[in-house]
Amino acid sequence: MKIGILGGGQLAQLLSASAYQLGLETLCLVEDSYCPAARTSPVMMGTLEENEVLKEFIEAADVCTLENENIDVSLLSLLEQEGPVYPKPDSIAVAQDRLLEKQCFQALNIPVPNYVGIESEQDLHQALTAIGTPAVLKTRRFGYDGKGQFVIRSPEQISEAWLAMGAQPAILECFVPFECEVSLIAARSITGDIVFYPLIKNTHRNGILQLSEFPYKDAGLQKQAEDYVRKLLEHFQYVGVLAFEFFVMNYGLLANEIAPRVHNSGHLTIEATTCSQFENHLRAISNMPLVSPDVIAPAVMINIIGSWPKFKNEDIGTGVHLYDYGKKERPGRKLGHITVLGLNKNLSSRVAQLIAAAKDNRF
Amino acid sequence: MKIGILGGGQLAQLLSASAYQLGLETLCLVEDSYCPAARTSPVMMGTLEENEVLKEFIEAADVCTLENENIDVSLLSLLEQEGPVYPKPDSIAVAQDRLLEKQCFQALNIPVPNYVGIESEQDLHQALTAIGTPAVLKTRRFGYDGKGQFVIRSPEQISEAWLAMGAQPAILECFVPFECEVSLIAARSITGDIVFYPLIKNTHRNGILQLSEFPYKDAGLQKQAEDYVRKLLEHFQYVGVLAFEFFVMNYGLLANEIAPRVHNSGHLTIEATTCSQFENHLRAISNMPLVSPDVIAPAVMINIIGSWPKFKNEDIGTGVHLYDYGKKERPGRKLGHITVLGLNKNLSSRVAQLIAAAKDNRF
Repeated sequence: MKIGILGGGQLAQLLSASAYQLGLETLCLVEDSYCPAARTSPVMMGTLEENEVLKEFIEAADVCTLENENIDVSLLSLLEQEGPVYPKPDSIAVAQDRLLEKQCFQALNIPVPNYVGIESEQDLHQALTAIGTPAVLKTRRFGYDGKGQFVIRSPEQISEAWLAMGAQPAILECFVPFECEVSLIAARSITGDIVFYPLIKNTHRNGILQLSEFPYKDAGLQKQAEDYVRKLLEHFQYVGVLAFEFFVMNYGLLANEIAPRVHNSGHLTIEATTCSQFENHLRAISNMPLVSPDVIAPAVMINIIGSWPKFKNEDIGTGVHLYDYGKKERPGRKLGHITVLGLNKNLSSRVAQLIAAAKDNRF
Repeated sequence: MKIGILGGGQLAQLLSASAYQLGLETLCLVEDSYCPAARTSPVMMGTLEENEVLKEFIEAADVCTLENENIDVSLLSLLEQEGPVYPKPDSIAVAQDRLLEKQCFQALNIPVPNYVGIESEQDLHQALTAIGTPAVLKTRRFGYDGKGQFVIRSPEQISEAWLAMGAQPAILECFVPFECEVSLIAARSITGDIVFYPLIKNTHRNGILQLSEFPYKDAGLQKQAEDYVRKLLEHFQYVGVLAFEFFVMNYGLLANEIAPRVHNSGHLTIEATTCSQFENHLRAISNMPLVSPDVIAPAVMINIIGSWPKFKNEDIGTGVHLYDYGKKERPGRKLGHITVLGLNKNLSSRVAQLIAAAKDNRF
């Protein structure tokens, strides 16, 4: 069975590496043959915009999936006419638009921070009066890794914020004083089975994930998160892995956003659980049984962003796993990640420093 | 850092897949670009016999290793003049010759079945009188997967056996009534650290491994095996993973043979331990710290030999991992393997049948 993956980044790379342990083949549709996915998968050059490429790709693959939700949903729907595509385009359409996403959460009684949809600078004036400062202006589309966000601390910043965000449809969201951020990763199968991972605690800087810590143990929040995610998965008859990011408030969880795909915070599930998010995603879309993951050991993951820290061989000690996506260094770019399994073991001071710096948010 | 691997089979494929989690690159020297290793690694076409290939390969790689001990040791020594090669050629020379191997075990006080070196049919007559029947005639060189072995049950078979084995230097070995066969996998680092895996119980048919069961729990035999393997590793100042196969007798272990490389019986260490044999081999030859592996859960591995059994998607349940090396079906050929982690979970009847058949040796 061959899995077609739209995209050639690190998520496609990691999915393809996992396919190898399920007897599955992969084919990634990429724009650059020197992309990360080419390390672990055969690739096809092209984009869905090219009609012949679209047909050739879906003919070669038994089922298609994606690594990035910022994709033209009308092209996905065309693709779906030729063969199965998971997750289905309707869930992608909601996940790629922050206003639709928030409205969907509300319709399912999943609590969200106060927000207002914004169509003009005039709207923004009114909304800021209603919501107060600080508030976050976010573009409706193409937001990831902190892109498309502007924190407004005083009304004088309205014009600057509106222009900085490209004077396009947006939402204004109340800045919530969260205790921390967590993600729940779940998978739903074609037959409707659902499995959940324990919550993961995430630390961001400038909107980019720096550190994930696993598991985040809070039975009450785990149950609340699972209830919310189950409602969402069943609403969409979703198939595949989905990550739901929440703010932890002193009264419970507030929905932040969803990613209809495998998620950066879940990379540590490769080492820390008996079935990684990548494996469960492939199982879901291939109609194999899902695996309810057991925890092997606690773990942390650090993203390598912008440039590589110097490592010595002795830093790669017990439980240390280092992934190099093979990208050129560039500010703000995710180049790789390190997962450390089992925190009780002797860590090199270099790795321990990296974790401490990520925790303290002082990279 | 780039690891050069001599060969393009499934061991090179699995080594390359593991390199990915240590931030290592690989390059496999292969004779066929459609080989298993090409799925997980860049490849270079050619052989060490071609002098320019040898130079180009070692220049591209920081350290070289191998997946098959049946390799011309003089070429390995040439390679070693240009850059580091692990394991070192002297250990390969012993492991690829059954007579040198047995003599080495004896010199280290590791008990072996009775045997006699054979140079002629006349030698074989005398040796069979000394050893009695049944006895096993084995070629000194190029023996693997039961190739190069002939069980002699009566003196009338002497000429047939001698010709069948190619009338070449051989050993005659007493056929030992073992209780079962086990393997100990170990790794030794450049700095002399050694780690051991728990014993693995192996079931063969026609000399080909069918089934491995892990762990084989016997504290006394584990200690005995570790003592023997430690002596061998230190004797050679060995670097990398080595597998030592033993016969379990009612009085303890008898040495069968060694493989100076990662080993088929160790494939289940990917899922069943916190650090696979592949990872520890790469750590050893790259001068990274070795990991003393913790057991995650018991596991069994079944080899897929000759042709693929029919699998349905629902057979690939919790804990079931299926590796397809991507080879054409051919009698006696290892096409892939299945590892089942944690035997208490619900297995599909298909997978349970495969395991039962391998255990009963009635494939």
